Amino acid sequence: MTQEGWTRKDLVGIADLSPQEIQLILDTAESFREVSERPIKKVPTLRGKTVVNLFFEASTRTRSSFEIAEKRLSADSLNFSSASSSLSKGESLIDTALNLQAMAPDLLVIRHSHPGVPHMLAERLPSGVINAGDGAHEHPTQALLDALTILQHKGRLEGLKISIVGDIEHSRVVRSNIHLLNKMGAEVTLAGPRTMMPVEAEKLGVRVVYTLDEAIKGADVIMMLRVQLERQSRLAFPSTREYFSLFGLTRERLKRAKRGVIIMHPGPMNRGVEIASDVADGPYSVILEQVANGVAVRMAVLYLLAGALQEAA
Amino acid sequence: MTQEGWTRKDLVGIADLSPQEIQLILDTAESFREVSERPIKKVPTLRGKTVVNLFFEASTRTRSSFEIAEKRLSADSLNFSSASSSLSKGESLIDTALNLQAMAPDLLVIRHSHPGVPHMLAERLPSGVINAGDGAHEHPTQALLDALTILQHKGRLEGLKISIVGDIEHSRVVRSNIHLLNKMGAEVTLAGPRTMMPVEAEKLGVRVVYTLDEAIKGADVIMMLRVQLERQSRLAFPSTREYFSLFGLTRERLKRAKRGVIIMHPGPMNRGVEIASDVADGPYSVILEQVANGVAVRMAVLYLLAGALQEAA
Amino acid sequence: MTQEGWTRKDLVGIADLSPQEIQLILDTAESFREVSERPIKKVPTLRGKTVVNLFFEASTRTRSSFEIAEKRLSADSLNFSSASSSLSKGESLIDTALNLQAMAPDLLVIRHSHPGVPHMLAERLPSGVINAGDGAHEHPTQALLDALTILQHKGRLEGLKISIVGDIEHSRVVRSNIHLLNKMGAEVTLAGPRTMMPVEAEKLGVRVVYTLDEAIKGADVIMMLRVQLERQSRLAFPSTREYFSLFGLTRERLKRAKRGVIIMHPGPMNRGVEIASDVADGPYSVILEQVANGVAVRMAVLYLLAGALQEAA
Repeated sequence: MTQEGWTRKDLVGIADLSPQEIQLILDTAESFREVSERPIKKVPTLRGKTVVNLFFEASTRTRSSFEIAEKRLSADSLNFSSASSSLSKGESLIDTALNLQAMAPDLLVIRHSHPGVPHMLAERLPSGVINAGDGAHEHPTQALLDALTILQHKGRLEGLKISIVGDIEHSRVVRSNIHLLNKMGAEVTLAGPRTMMPVEAEKLGVRVVYTLDEAIKGADVIMMLRVQLERQSRLAFPSTREYFSLFGLTRERLKRAKRGVIIMHPGPMNRGVEIASDVADGPYSVILEQVANGVAVRMAVLYLLAGALQEAA
Repeated sequence: MTQEGWTRKDLVGIADLSPQEIQLILDTAESFREVSERPIKKVPTLRGKTVVNLFFEASTRTRSSFEIAEKRLSADSLNFSSASSSLSKGESLIDTALNLQAMAPDLLVIRHSHPGVPHMLAERLPSGVINAGDGAHEHPTQALLDALTILQHKGRLEGLKISIVGDIEHSRVVRSNIHLLNKMGAEVTLAGPRTMMPVEAEKLGVRVVYTLDEAIKGADVIMMLRVQLERQSRLAFPSTREYFSLFGLTRERLKRAKRGVIIMHPGPMNRGVEIASDVADGPYSVILEQVANGVAVRMAVLYLLAGALQEAA
Repeated sequence: MTQEGWTRKDLVGIADLSPQEIQLILDTAESFREVSERPIKKVPTLRGKTVVNLFFEASTRTRSSFEIAEKRLSADSLNFSSASSSLSKGESLIDTALNLQAMAPDLLVIRHSHPGVPHMLAERLPSGVINAGDGAHEHPTQALLDALTILQHKGRLEGLKISIVGDIEHSRVVRSNIHLLNKMGAEVTLAGPRTMMPVEAEKLGVRVVYTLDEAIKGADVIMMLRVQLERQSRLAFPSTREYFSLFGLTRERLKRAKRGVIIMHPGPMNRGVEIASDVADGPYSVILEQVANGVAVRMAVLYLLAGALQEAA
């Protein structure tokens, strides 16, 4: 395990990273994967470090994935959610963060509905800051765990054809994935209803199609996005049934896919909306491997940032 | 401390256990009781193990009892409640559980309002699963801590007369206790208003009576159940005052009890509804010993299941 | 580090403490400050001790400060909030506490809206009890961290002129500070609108003034209190703008202050209500140092109480 070449104290977005930095995180994550398979799933790497998880949006998998990563590295974790915080007393986010900072945490993991919040905190605070999702902006550890999963199945990212299907416009997962996959030389196709496609999507350096069949054809990887039913009032299609009939991934449709295709989903899934249950649980699905890789990627990021902070001190 | 003879990865209910298995848990718990009395209340038994507490119903004592048990065994604990989870985004319980599973926890402790959920998870997941209460079905660690408390006072379970009083029909505590006490050779009497007694209660292998005096007479142990005021709309009696006059345990009524009787209650108590305050705090009450034994029993169960998982690996 | 001279198992209020006890806490805190500046921010002092944080009011800084203090001392922390507890099932506070007690925690940290709750628990429970704020009564660790901060800047408390400005009547911070500062020989001035000043405030052994200018003049320390906007309906002035114009601390007003004055605030701040942003972030502000000292003071208190409990055992 080497921290050679890593100098950042923050991971705010994939957009900032060089291909070498991305590769270093993925290599480090690969070496951490094995820790979660041991009988004693714990290394003393971050003993005596304090990591604060500041989640201003509900989350099961991302928060728990970070918390497990922190505990397997022997860090001390603290959890905050918006409900229990002083923000309910009208304090500004930056004052809350400065106050936590004064308690000398080493790293802050933050999820916030407002794009740019992790960036602002990273600039203002001496602690390392990890973006765990900021609005529709970035979700860098998700793109990294996706890349780690693809690498394990395909051995490379360069030259791969990767199709991302669904509500492209509102997805921070897509944004981080496009940055990462473009930097690493993959060929990205975006697919979805026109009403869910950002204006001038082609300018992102990707191919854009408007049918699922075009997205499936020739793809090495198909990444299905979650339909955000919780904001269904602003949904851009008449019903979930109609969405499923047009963009739901079924076994029938997969017959036209390339041999060896893998199916990904960032979760939580809506079975029967963007993906059929038998596809989600089927032989091409690597969805649960993504989750397992999430812990390894987060361990790698925590480890690299803590190393950079130490050197700077 | 021996794990000899224990092979289960799950504790879903008392119904599944043999008398030998019940005895093994109780013996193991007895040996763990001492840990909580040390100045350093911690053993390294589960170091590097990840235990997830998944509570889909509010709980103070059971969740905290498990969490304390986990920490005294040096496990890493993670807490989830329904409010903060992806279930609020419409994900199915099994997907939430599979996702947590992918992060490689060793043990899951689950409370859920739906009977059978722990059983379903135990079948689907390689992790060990502990039922911390599922609807009106089972609450096995409660019955085990009750048994440990009785043993400490009476030295045996066999042949003891144990009366359980209150809302029999909706109680998972009763169900687990009947299984355990029947298997261990105790004689169980159920008492309560007819409207709170399950149809054909006698078929459970118990005696059924409908007055508190009959329940008290000759009993070695009286176990009072909580009246669930939070679902008072469906209560089967006119008022809590009326309930207290008919089934509330008072000092006056206890005069007719057998010498050396002990009074139990699984908590949380409604003082002045099912039990008078002076009885709850009086010389026959072992209610707080039950709570203390809860930590020891949960340590024992966590230890035995983790051992079985290790051997299977 | 010495526990010599400390015999209390509880810290319920500053009112109970002798000047020697206050000095011992401050000296101990000073020696713990350094732990949070190490690369490995952890000492094994409270390993195997269980600390329960029982917060019945929302709190970011106090709860997290205690939790960080506990983790840096290697204690096992458990968190309870009112929402998730059995109190929602109608259990009395004392029963909840007795139940937690039965699980053999070493220390309980409690915040409650009702004055006197920590005192009642301290009397009833063998565990050590720390008051983390009880209604408008006391908040002893806040006064201690304030004193530590003043000491670091002024080298002494005796003879210092300290002005406290704002909603005096409803502030537990003020009450604990008056006790501490009087005992240590400082001269306290209270300032605020007449509608926020307790009747017969002078009987507290302090000077009382009704303008900010009088409070500023000659003060070595100015402590601004939070305007509790969340209970604005009962506010004793027409608007926050009006409050700011009369009692808001601005750079302009500070021109009349004594050379070397320091500005304090217990947080969370309302910028532009009781304090101007440029003053809060300005050269005289020691507000974030207060937060940092909070962790050290809480480590000291946890350490001293645990030592007294050990000796008593």
